[in-house]
Amino acid sequence: MICPRHLRVFISVVICILISTTSGRSIYNDYMQQRKQLIQDDSKLRIGGKLVLRSDEKLVSDFFMKEKTKIIESSRQNLTLYMPAVSFFLSKPQIDNSTLLKLIQRMPKGGALHLHDMSVTSLDWLIKNATYRDNVYMCVGDDSLINFHVFKSPPKHSDCVWHSVKDERAKAASVDDFDLMLKRNLSLLATDPLTTYPDNAHIWIRFARYFLQVYNLIFYAPIFKDYYWRTLEEFRADNVQYIELRGAMSGVFDLDHTVHNEEFGVQLYQNVTTEFVQAYPDFVGAKVIMSGSRNSKAVKILDQVKTAMYLNQKYPDFMMGYDLVGNEAAYNPLLFYINELLYPATQSPPYKLPYFFHAGETNWEGTDIDDNLADAILLNATRIGHGYALNKHPKLAQLVRAKNIPVEVNPISNQVLHLVSDQRNHPMASLMADNFPIVISSDDCATWEALPLSHDFYVAFMDMSGEDADLTFLKQLAINSIRYSAMSHSEKHKAMKLWETKWDMFIKGVIEEYMPSYHLK
Amino acid sequence: MICPRHLRVFISVVICILISTTSGRSIYNDYMQQRKQLIQDDSKLRIGGKLVLRSDEKLVSDFFMKEKTKIIESSRQNLTLYMPAVSFFLSKPQIDNSTLLKLIQRMPKGGALHLHDMSVTSLDWLIKNATYRDNVYMCVGDDSLINFHVFKSPPKHSDCVWHSVKDERAKAASVDDFDLMLKRNLSLLATDPLTTYPDNAHIWIRFARYFLQVYNLIFYAPIFKDYYWRTLEEFRADNVQYIELRGAMSGVFDLDHTVHNEEFGVQLYQNVTTEFVQAYPDFVGAKVIMSGSRNSKAVKILDQVKTAMYLNQKYPDFMMGYDLVGNEAAYNPLLFYINELLYPATQSPPYKLPYFFHAGETNWEGTDIDDNLADAILLNATRIGHGYALNKHPKLAQLVRAKNIPVEVNPISNQVLHLVSDQRNHPMASLMADNFPIVISSDDCATWEALPLSHDFYVAFMDMSGEDADLTFLKQLAINSIRYSAMSHSEKHKAMKLWETKWDMFIKGVIEEYMPSYHLK
Repeated sequence: MICPRHLRVFISVVICILISTTSGRSIYNDYMQQRKQLIQDDSKLRIGGKLVLRSDEKLVSDFFMKEKTKIIESSRQNLTLYMPAVSFFLSKPQIDNSTLLKLIQRMPKGGALHLHDMSVTSLDWLIKNATYRDNVYMCVGDDSLINFHVFKSPPKHSDCVWHSVKDERAKAASVDDFDLMLKRNLSLLATDPLTTYPDNAHIWIRFARYFLQVYNLIFYAPIFKDYYWRTLEEFRADNVQYIELRGAMSGVFDLDHTVHNEEFGVQLYQNVTTEFVQAYPDFVGAKVIMSGSRNSKAVKILDQVKTAMYLNQKYPDFMMGYDLVGNEAAYNPLLFYINELLYPATQSPPYKLPYFFHAGETNWEGTDIDDNLADAILLNATRIGHGYALNKHPKLAQLVRAKNIPVEVNPISNQVLHLVSDQRNHPMASLMADNFPIVISSDDCATWEALPLSHDFYVAFMDMSGEDADLTFLKQLAINSIRYSAMSHSEKHKAMKLWETKWDMFIKGVIEEYMPSYHLK
Repeated sequence: MICPRHLRVFISVVICILISTTSGRSIYNDYMQQRKQLIQDDSKLRIGGKLVLRSDEKLVSDFFMKEKTKIIESSRQNLTLYMPAVSFFLSKPQIDNSTLLKLIQRMPKGGALHLHDMSVTSLDWLIKNATYRDNVYMCVGDDSLINFHVFKSPPKHSDCVWHSVKDERAKAASVDDFDLMLKRNLSLLATDPLTTYPDNAHIWIRFARYFLQVYNLIFYAPIFKDYYWRTLEEFRADNVQYIELRGAMSGVFDLDHTVHNEEFGVQLYQNVTTEFVQAYPDFVGAKVIMSGSRNSKAVKILDQVKTAMYLNQKYPDFMMGYDLVGNEAAYNPLLFYINELLYPATQSPPYKLPYFFHAGETNWEGTDIDDNLADAILLNATRIGHGYALNKHPKLAQLVRAKNIPVEVNPISNQVLHLVSDQRNHPMASLMADNFPIVISSDDCATWEALPLSHDFYVAFMDMSGEDADLTFLKQLAINSIRYSAMSHSEKHKAMKLWETKWDMFIKGVIEEYMPSYHLK
């Protein structure tokens, strides 16, 4: 029995416990509320974080997320190697086998804005179609790499002994083996540059060699035209609606040794594009960006800048500007050509030649080449190619955001070229978490046997965004690719309409195929 | 001869050229001016970017920069592998051979704030001193790894067969080979985890095993005391003036099987520290942080939190707070223990137990464990351990900066544990470029045979800052380590004075040794 005095003590103890429990619960509740808000605020900042999905999109998003979570959690919890983030040379078969890749392939992805014209049509087509033609010759260099060339007849005196590809193929025990040998000889994938070459500098040498291997095959006028047509076909098949292609524009040649100038190249690209869009009205189109090489002499760059001005003025809806390409670490920084690149601004009246500079595709922070990012911004670049080093430059990053300069990110290219190993460390993951103006592209996808755009989208989705980033992330990337393209306002409007129609079909199609019971309701 | 009309044309042409050249020159000059300003503005944002060096410091800085530039440019221009950024297991011999490492060793570095008590004294001492004592036994586990234990006499029935280390050493053909075998068996360096273990999850298993190997050797009271004394000696020899050590505090045992509690551990640490500072007045001191394991049951964590409150209250200048350690990816997130961790706040009056949480030591963006960063912030962490994933959380990063929560970055640890491969991709490089509140520490340096702090400073200097980041960067890191320590205001003041004296001696000494002609002036 509790006497009155003890009762008082007992009651005060109970009250005290109650107060403390209540206060504990309220502290806990407040905490959980704040926590939810903070995590939400953080993830809303990411690319797509502010998009709101319709209920049918949400269904598809949940299906994407089921696949994404399955892959991530099975690796995280079972301690198995997380394949989506490791070398593309190891992960490709597993990625190719996934439902998620199929979904991403099926998704309309908008535009691919950072591509190089000699390295975007599949090697399969190059071998199985281009090298089957008349007048195609091959020779094996001292480095065991094959050079292709189209000749009426090969030169009699040459360090490299030329053989007709047709003859060699006819002599081969197996045509399939012969063609596979040719493909392996071109492909970076076959040699696994992530283990074969120790660093960025060495894989660049091999990579640059590819262009010498194929240049005199691809640039033969009839092949060039078909090669480009095939580029468009393959991107369309990968559900890309629009591309922007960098290339020298000059160098297309005929069998009689005629070498055509830049305008010829631009016209050819434009004509093929027009034909293609007529044949496939669900494809938006293409534009080109003339590009020089950062190891050229200054006087050559000046000529190119002048040509680019002329072509941009004459084909303002198609030849959109100028870029400098090649290994930034090994070649000249933009500053080396500053007088030439300022040339359009010194004209009277000043000419605004749009620049689309590769800049900051490097791990060499604080070196001359790292300053390319500053020059790209100061030269009013319309977009920046790669910008891999941007997150190490807070002031430049701030300007890129303020000026809304889109950055063209090419995840697999950066991994193949040894800038990053585990894709989850890709520096753009941080800028994508902060809604930077970013588009995903595929650079030289054919060289490492990647799909036109889907593999790069896959890597962005699985490695460069959080486990909780859903379809809004991918949808925003597709929207960005149209918004940040070089299309005019009205072209963008039209492209967006076309993309939206495709998007709705995609949502409908995925629901029909994967959620038939829901569909039947 | 030029007739008047032609003269007019000629003059107007000349004027036009002059105007255009002048306008071109002015555009160029404006450009170069803007460029200089922009690059300067950008680099001023980095850690140390606002420090101004005295002329003698500038001399030493230039000498550092000569060495830094030599290493970077020789790799960049000669296409040789950039050793400072590759696996520490490959680069260590070359780093050890460099003048730069010697300079960094000599530099007073302030404090090391993120250390674990069982893995910071060199393996050499552990083998050559601790295992030479009486009563030390060893057995070889099924995984071929050696377990050490101190016993009066080993248990008769045990899965693992115990042998006296003394006896085994006496039987060995060569004592040196025997000791080297022991060291290799403990060291992660010997097994090269960057190639032996495929990922973070697997190297964590091996890493956690190290602690089981040595626990019952190091925690034997007499060894424990000497081990810690040796920790202080080695850090002092590496020109570190102060340390903060995480540890369980409990578990120190005697030969009669007595196992001591946390307070015993704290007192032991405090007594040894006091003795050490008396013996070496140029050493500032040490503090401890009690740490539990993230795979414990909640009830155990609550007990620890209560003990930590008691000890923090009783030893407010020495036992500074509480942390949870262990593999974040495999174990419980902070949220799992939220009631336990909120316990101090629910007391009446609320107790402010300082937390020093490991958080975001992961590449698993957007998973439960990635949310540890949010919890660390909301639980008012005094500092954050690692925060590797912070740059993927713009809102959290903004809060960390606003609340000035220091992040303890351990570059070599992150590489050894497979979070990053090329150190130039370390995500903290971007936050260091933006003057985040960061300190550099060395985590479990002995485990991978790194120096107490110099190797990690070397990596920060060579890989995580630009080529143009000079001595201001290193000086600021040293200042940060005092500013962001758990010392009181007056302790910090005293520590800074001591450090400044050492810094001036360091500057003087380097000038005397490397620039004798300047010194003689």
